[in-house]
Formats: sequence, C-alpha cells, structure tokens
Amino acid sequence: MFNPVIAEVTRGGLLESRHTGVYAVIDSDGRVSASAGDISQAVFPRSAIKAFQCLPVIESGAADRFGFSDEDIALSCASHNGEPEHVRVARSMLKKAGNTEDLFECGAHWPMEINAQHMAVRESSKPLPVQNNCSGKHAAMLALSRHLGAEPAGYVERHHPVQGAMAASIGGICDCNIESAAWGVDGCSVPTWPIPIRNMALGFARLTGPTHQAGQRIIKAVRAHPYMVAGRGRFDTELMQALPRVFVKVGAEGVYCGSVPHAQLGIALKCDDGATRAAEVAMASVLAKLDVWTNEEKRTLERFARQELSNWRNINVGEVHAVQT
Amino acid sequence: MFNPVIAEVTRGGLLESRHTGVYAVIDSDGRVSASAGDISQAVFPRSAIKAFQCLPVIESGAADRFGFSDEDIALSCASHNGEPEHVRVARSMLKKAGNTEDLFECGAHWPMEINAQHMAVRESSKPLPVQNNCSGKHAAMLALSRHLGAEPAGYVERHHPVQGAMAASIGGICDCNIESAAWGVDGCSVPTWPIPIRNMALGFARLTGPTHQAGQRIIKAVRAHPYMVAGRGRFDTELMQALPRVFVKVGAEGVYCGSVPHAQLGIALKCDDGATRAAEVAMASVLAKLDVWTNEEKRTLERFARQELSNWRNINVGEVHAVQT
Repeated sequence: MFNPVIAEVTRGGLLESRHTGVYAVIDSDGRVSASAGDISQAVFPRSAIKAFQCLPVIESGAADRFGFSDEDIALSCASHNGEPEHVRVARSMLKKAGNTEDLFECGAHWPMEINAQHMAVRESSKPLPVQNNCSGKHAAMLALSRHLGAEPAGYVERHHPVQGAMAASIGGICDCNIESAAWGVDGCSVPTWPIPIRNMALGFARLTGPTHQAGQRIIKAVRAHPYMVAGRGRFDTELMQALPRVFVKVGAEGVYCGSVPHAQLGIALKCDDGATRAAEVAMASVLAKLDVWTNEEKRTLERFARQELSNWRNINVGEVHAVQT
Repeated sequence: MFNPVIAEVTRGGLLESRHTGVYAVIDSDGRVSASAGDISQAVFPRSAIKAFQCLPVIESGAADRFGFSDEDIALSCASHNGEPEHVRVARSMLKKAGNTEDLFECGAHWPMEINAQHMAVRESSKPLPVQNNCSGKHAAMLALSRHLGAEPAGYVERHHPVQGAMAASIGGICDCNIESAAWGVDGCSVPTWPIPIRNMALGFARLTGPTHQAGQRIIKAVRAHPYMVAGRGRFDTELMQALPRVFVKVGAEGVYCGSVPHAQLGIALKCDDGATRAAEVAMASVLAKLDVWTNEEKRTLERFARQELSNWRNINVGEVHAVQT
C-alpha cells in the first residue's frame, strides 16, 4: 500500500521526519529504466508540466507570430519567484501579443522570493497578478487565446479553447486520455488533470525527441535561461545552472519532473505527502543514479541530493537527504 | 514499519497527497485511552512542549518574583505570530525581569503572520529577535537565568543552568531520562530532546493534575489568552477560542500536543513527514473521538478536522481532512 521512503530529515544526527514517494524514469519508447513505488498511480502534475502547456503555444504558431524569445518560452514553463526580471519578461510577453495585465486570471500573490517580496511590499499596498509565479504561463495562454481568435475572458476555464488545447497537448505527449477525465483546479485557476507517474515520465522523454521541434525549442530555452524557470535560491534554477545537461521542473504538492535530453529519458516523481523538500533531493538522487553522466556531473547531483538545514542564527541543525530506493 | 494514514489532501474530489502519523491519548496514570501507530517512537517535540519549558520558570519562583501575568505565561508557552500584541508582551516580560532585547539568542525572523510581517517590512529594514515566534519562551528563559544568578550569555547552550532546568523539567513530567540522551538544536537554538510519543502525552496528562500548581497556572493562562499562544488565523488560537476546555500546542515538523484538563488526559501526535496541516486536522479528529465532550464541542472539533483549501483567486479547490485511524 505504501510507497518507499525517498527522503529523510535529520536533526542532531537523529531521524526527525521522513517522506515516501514514487518515481519513474522512462525512455521515449516507454521502457522503464528505473522506478520505485506504484508508477501506475495517477497524480496531479500541477506546475511540473508547464512545458506541455507551452507546446500548443509553439505548435499553433502563436509563439512565432508574437516573436516570443527563448526567455519568453522559459518563463512560460516557469514557477518563478516574481523577481523584477521575471515580472519584466511577463510584461514583455503580454505586450508582444497585444494583451494587458487586467486580462490575467491567475490571481495575485506577493513574489515568492523574500527579497523581491519585501521590495514589492515596500513599493505597493497589494500584490499583482504579474507577480504570480505562473504569470509567464498565463501570458503564453493569453497569447494563444488571441492567436486562436478566442475571447480572452475565461481562458482558464475547462471549456475555453485554450484549455482544450492544453488537454490535447498533455494527453497527446503523455499518451493518455485526459479529455474525459475528472480534474481539479490549480492554484492559478486552470484545470489540472491526474496523470499516471509512468505517463508523465513518458511525456518528458518524448519532449527530448530529436524530431520534436517544439520540445527541442523548449529544452533549448529553459537550459539557456534557468533563472527564468524559478529564480534566486531555487532548486530548479541552481540545479540547471550547475548541470546544464538537465531540464527539471517542480510542481506543487511534491511533484518533480524532468528530462535528460542527451539520453532521451524522462522522469516523474511525486512525494506522497506533497513535500517539495523531499521531491527535490529525491529528484537529484534519482538523476545521480542514472548511467548517463560524467563523474563530475554525478558528484554535482549527489551534492544536490543532500540539503543542509539551518536555524534562525544560521547554525546547521540537520539536513534533508534522499534515501536510495 | 509505517504508521497509519492520519490525513488526506484532496483536489477536485480526488486524492492528491496523504500523511501518515502516530498519536497517543494517555491519562495521568499512564493508561492509553486511544492511539495509532508506534507510540514508543521517540520524536523531537520541538515547540509543542513549551509548557514544560515554562514549568521551571514558575516552580523556581522566577515568575512570581518578576510579576509575570497570565498573558506573560501564555506567551512563554507560545509560537506566536510576531504581531504587535505579541511583541508588546515579550518586551514587557524582558523589562519586568530587568533584561534587554540584545540578550536574546533566539535569532531574528520576520513576523510569521503576513499582515504583521508586511507592516514590519514597511517600518524596518531587518527583523528583530523579539519578533521571533519563540521570543516569549526566551524572555522567560532570560528571567529564569537572572533568577538563578547565572550569566545570561549562552543561556541557550546545553550546559547552561537554564537548559539544565529545562532538561530536568521535561524529563520529570514526561517520566523519561533525557539528561543523558542525544539531542538536537531547535530553530531558536535551544536543545530539543527526542521523547517517545507515549511519554509526551503522559506529560500533558500530568500537567492537568489538580495538585500540579504550575500546571494549573499554565493551563489557566493559555486558556485565558489563546491569542498569545499563536495569533491571527492560527489553528491553536482558533481551536482554543472555539473550544475553551482544551489546551493545544503545535510544534515544528508535524508535532501537536495538548491536554483535556477536565478529563485529565494528555495527547501527543506526530505527522511522520513533518506537515503541520496534517497534524492540525488529525489533532482535531483525535480530540473529537474522545468521549469527554458535549455534542456541540464534538461538532466544533469535527469542523476543525476538515480545512478547505483555496487558490489565489479564493476559489475552493480542495481540502485537508483527517482520516479515522
């Protein structure tokens, strides 16, 4: 019934907490390279599959029509910190497609990164939708809506053409029928459909295919602009900066996905309890075990599989580390 | 090997995440009224046992000597939000005992409650130790240090007389020898010793004993001032405001403890993965199942065992609910 322990938290050398989870590493033919737990389990992918939500923006011609740069594409796939650079690019995407901030239906929240948040708090009395971590994705969805000639109002709704395109894209690359599936509403108000871990990993493997033009464009963009995908102090950004041959993307509730383009592998992981700290170190550990890295890359990944915990006086009090499964 | 599922998170009616855990309900003679999981498991109690750290402050005579009010005692047992009211009381405690803010060794962090945090950010360039959620406990520890005639510097260290008194108090009421036990460093830099769940619950049962004068004083104080124990929007405060016959206290990493004074019961609970959201609803559910409430109280507890989840546009997207064990 339970998935295996994928991460532990220690304090003073003693076990404090632990996390179970499931993951799959899959090639583009659907062969399982590595896994733990029940990989047929369907999970809400949340923000981990923003790359799949970006595909129709490229494949429809919207990205070219509006002149989206690699930076724009990277921000479309991001759960960003709301730092000034992220806000600048989101605004630029809106402008390129002739859209405006009042069209955003993602909701507003303060920037996630504390320095950016406090800067925003000192400058303004309320947060802006453009600071929402999903504003790049929403700017891309609004561009797609315009390209499709649809009303922008309600672009987050399940039956709007934009979300129809999302369902088709996600279902297509993950090889599963989500059109008729039950769904939930994500933090940014768009639908999120449960997808088996195995199929999510398959999607990330297929994204790397040499003939998958939109996939190639996305992978090139996120690897060129890892800062756009998350930001200061964030695991995604720091891992991609340290290891440029990987593409990783976090989702809420302990989801982590990624691609190893040079090996055409896709990875999907879910921490059962929804903890990001566990999903991060476990993802690094799963990647490290793959036989596709130089020794130096492997050491980099092993370093990311262990994160120190400090207290309010910056004293090291323990760590979060991945557990081999 | 695994403890049972104590809480689930759903989205769109579908399971998204789940949490396992352990709990015990114990009377003051050590009899188990209810439990799930391995209650001999030792866990770091973290802030859940601040009441036990307050005992020596009362029993030594320090609290009386410095004229600590019920509000002061409640704040000593608190993980507070750093709201202006909490900061005011912490400062008053320092002053009463002739101490100053520069003596705090808890470290500084911004107020936890978002409105208080943003107010502080607009007023100041850096957070203050007095805003630390543990500042009441530290003001009480500094008072004890002065009362004992000890140097205040290093009062957070394991071998300082203040922490010796803490170890004796915790070990005594929980009936376990922690003097020689391994320990970890807490977020606020004081030692935290692992204690079996069963013993932690026993301590909270004993606290309710009619002849335990310091325990009676603490329970009276926290029930009179539930806002001091946590603050706006916090589970501890809201539950004690809605159900004045209970005393509950959260700790970091998914720990929750409490007492039912009128039934002389103690409760200790740990969510294995450290999630507060699960510990909260599970604690309410464990309390609800006890045969010690009026029907109205029971309904109140059942209401707290289910918490709605909203997204950035305040749309209800799911819930966290306790699972019966």
